Amino acid sequence: MVCKAELLCIGNELLIGKTTNTNATWLSDRITRLGGDVTRVTVVGDEIKTIGAAIRETLRRNPDLVITSGGLGPTFDDKTLLAFSKTLRRSISINKNALKMIRSKYARILGRKNMRLTQPRLKMAMLPAGAKPFHNPVGTAPAVTLTERGIKFVILPGVPAELQAIFNKTIADIVRAMAGRQFFYETSITVFGLPESQIAPLIDQVMEKMPTVYIKSHAKGGEGSQKGLIELHFSTKSNRKATAMSRTLRAVTMMSELLGTASSGSYGHSGSDPR
Amino acid sequence: MVCKAELLCIGNELLIGKTTNTNATWLSDRITRLGGDVTRVTVVGDEIKTIGAAIRETLRRNPDLVITSGGLGPTFDDKTLLAFSKTLRRSISINKNALKMIRSKYARILGRKNMRLTQPRLKMAMLPAGAKPFHNPVGTAPAVTLTERGIKFVILPGVPAELQAIFNKTIADIVRAMAGRQFFYETSITVFGLPESQIAPLIDQVMEKMPTVYIKSHAKGGEGSQKGLIELHFSTKSNRKATAMSRTLRAVTMMSELLGTASSGSYGHSGSDPR
Repeated sequence: MVCKAELLCIGNELLIGKTTNTNATWLSDRITRLGGDVTRVTVVGDEIKTIGAAIRETLRRNPDLVITSGGLGPTFDDKTLLAFSKTLRRSISINKNALKMIRSKYARILGRKNMRLTQPRLKMAMLPAGAKPFHNPVGTAPAVTLTERGIKFVILPGVPAELQAIFNKTIADIVRAMAGRQFFYETSITVFGLPESQIAPLIDQVMEKMPTVYIKSHAKGGEGSQKGLIELHFSTKSNRKATAMSRTLRAVTMMSELLGTASSGSYGHSGSDPR
Repeated sequence: MVCKAELLCIGNELLIGKTTNTNATWLSDRITRLGGDVTRVTVVGDEIKTIGAAIRETLRRNPDLVITSGGLGPTFDDKTLLAFSKTLRRSISINKNALKMIRSKYARILGRKNMRLTQPRLKMAMLPAGAKPFHNPVGTAPAVTLTERGIKFVILPGVPAELQAIFNKTIADIVRAMAGRQFFYETSITVFGLPESQIAPLIDQVMEKMPTVYIKSHAKGGEGSQKGLIELHFSTKSNRKATAMSRTLRAVTMMSELLGTASSGSYGHSGSDPR
């Protein structure tokens, strides 16, 4: 089984460089560890038209799962659900369960006195037809899920603490079930004293013998000199944890032997536990 | 004049959550400050097929400028130029100027003894027809530019120090010229003691009177309580610096007055200089 997942991150703050997209990093890390494959991340601004275009393009690529972040709050620029409604041609209206969640949230936070369901608060309960709200343990806007053409959409708020709490509580199990039992294992070694261009053919040699282990080189520090550090990152996936691990370590050993022959310099091994 | 720019970031490390996409943040910040508009960020992995799909989708959206990052190095997984060649149906071959840049780089770094142009080194000089290399002051892989259907593509390496040096040296002027004289101004105020849902109608009021100032609210800290901090971010663009500034500050004043009336709590003003 596979779970091909796309992320769609919504917010002008990401496009003006005010905010770094750590939601994408966090979600990618979690989904990978749960056995899923993140195949694309898309970032667009707070406009119905561009959000809609991104949704349509996602439908065309046909992943199993799409997780969106941002645009669920009470202000005018929170347009994600409206964009889904227009793009998927589904009517939008107050969802009773969402309204219940919002009502109880405000009652608890503000007390009975201020819990009046004003327009901005009601807005967060306006869901496209067929969408289901689910509990946001941290903030006020419920998260939402809907299915279109067999693709599961999970629509999360953009505030990291809210996004993470909802993912851990509800979405992690969904990803795990979609991906089946898949274990991701990774480790890195750091190579000193050899330029990346000299390591390249060694990577080819190891990957030819062990095609299921992906080896990627990253130039680290010492840029400007080809004698800087090169991180070699080894990763693989398997439905058996022990297989993923032993396979990766075999590739590391093979590489270490080749590096020992190729280099007069030394290399460091900074193996890390699976995340 | 406008400069609609898209970013296309290439690298598996971004999709497994190993690396945070700070290149996208840095480029978005710089382009915004130079008067351009980043309209989308796309992240894909190191596969010719998916890079190609992303390039084709970008062509369809027809921005003025596309900046790509990643996939220019000497290893097997550096496939960006090959993807451009296949997708745009342009032959790929050794570019003499690129070769000259690479040759002089290795001569300088490794000395004459080791500067042999091996296959992985030659690979970085393989450019699609019509593409032009330009100098990478930090690393070895030249950056590349090409034009397709009136869209300018700037193809940069993914190592942040290299990407930033090349952008500052060569690309900033291009963006500035495309965008014309456009000044971006931004400032923020922090509001205490009012839930976002209560601030929402005030934002609507100010933006109705000052539609050229974009006001976006961000829930900060204190999540789980609607009484946490809310950052209100004001931004605008104008071809006159003074106009951008005074317009934004007028909106801030207007908002401050409304907040003073609405709130028994206080609000803080954390105005920042234009970036």
